[in-house]
Amino acid sequence: MKDRLSKQIEFIKEIDKIKDIIRKSTRFASNKKENDAEHSWHICVMAMVLAEYSNYKDIDMLKVLKMLLIHDLVEIHAGDYIFYTDKQAEKEQKEKEGAEITFGILPEDQKKEFIGLWNEFEARITPEAKFARVVDRLEPIMQNYHNGGDGWIEHKISSDMILDRNSIIKDGSEELWEFVKSMVADTVGKGIIK
Amino acid sequence: MKDRLSKQIEFIKEIDKIKDIIRKSTRFASNKKENDAEHSWHICVMAMVLAEYSNYKDIDMLKVLKMLLIHDLVEIHAGDYIFYTDKQAEKEQKEKEGAEITFGILPEDQKKEFIGLWNEFEARITPEAKFARVVDRLEPIMQNYHNGGDGWIEHKISSDMILDRNSIIKDGSEELWEFVKSMVADTVGKGIIK
Repeated sequence: MKDRLSKQIEFIKEIDKIKDIIRKSTRFASNKKENDAEHSWHICVMAMVLAEYSNYKDIDMLKVLKMLLIHDLVEIHAGDYIFYTDKQAEKEQKEKEGAEITFGILPEDQKKEFIGLWNEFEARITPEAKFARVVDRLEPIMQNYHNGGDGWIEHKISSDMILDRNSIIKDGSEELWEFVKSMVADTVGKGIIK
Repeated sequence: MKDRLSKQIEFIKEIDKIKDIIRKSTRFASNKKENDAEHSWHICVMAMVLAEYSNYKDIDMLKVLKMLLIHDLVEIHAGDYIFYTDKQAEKEQKEKEGAEITFGILPEDQKKEFIGLWNEFEARITPEAKFARVVDRLEPIMQNYHNGGDGWIEHKISSDMILDRNSIIKDGSEELWEFVKSMVADTVGKGIIK
């Protein structure tokens, strides 16, 4: 097999490991936690369905989907930190190493492309990155809301923390941010969280 | 909540069920079978990595990814038939019903868009559909090959059947079809399948 194709095949096999990285949120249709591959797939379909709510018109949806598809691959090395972690610096360092290791399996030009997409997603500057972050954040909030706030209760997360850490949703979609606020207000109203 | 957004949210919750639809092939990094969500995610990344091998240059990769992301949603209603099924007519009927039911949760314009993508994928006429089918077929072949032909042995699949049923890979990528033939020949050479 040609050297280029063999690197690509190696990468395709390696990323299977993402299916063993279990997230903190419970699924909609089951009481199981979902894994990173399931999450990545789900938020891609969410991006397709909810694209009309982006603050920016004419965003490059191909780039949005590419970012979402690969954004969690760094966790093969770094693992899944809880979103409300206080180990932010450690997390960033580990994920940076993970990007080098995992994307480094690819041919050089593709390694560069994938690291570029991941950096763009992390930096949250472009309209595409801002919208990609909307669905990445929205899914676990919807899951928590759907499941009676189970994850928020378990990890003692208050409504202030949710709104503070997720306010970047507003940068990508004012309308979906209103939707998030209504879910959080309803959960507070029911006395589930403070 | 607005009626339109509420239909979209309902759809997003409903499709979570795809994570319970277990496929026939064993994963690369585990002896577990994968589910439809994991499969859909994996073949999207494969499409990103292997796009250069498409027979057609300048294909619309956004359309390829959209087709791959939603192609298995009909199985929430229809279930997963083995690829080498002799119940082809029943499978097609069930999946057609499934498309109406699942995509029917969406607002009318999006229902139409998603059914259109699914029909295009099934029809295998456009360059995008042909390439999307390449990765959809390639992943289970790679998994079987990686796992010593376990699925082929279990279901008594011969090399003639594999090459016959998968020859549509050639329509989307001559180069990846050569790769498939080399995996099958190697498996026959080792005496694993006939």
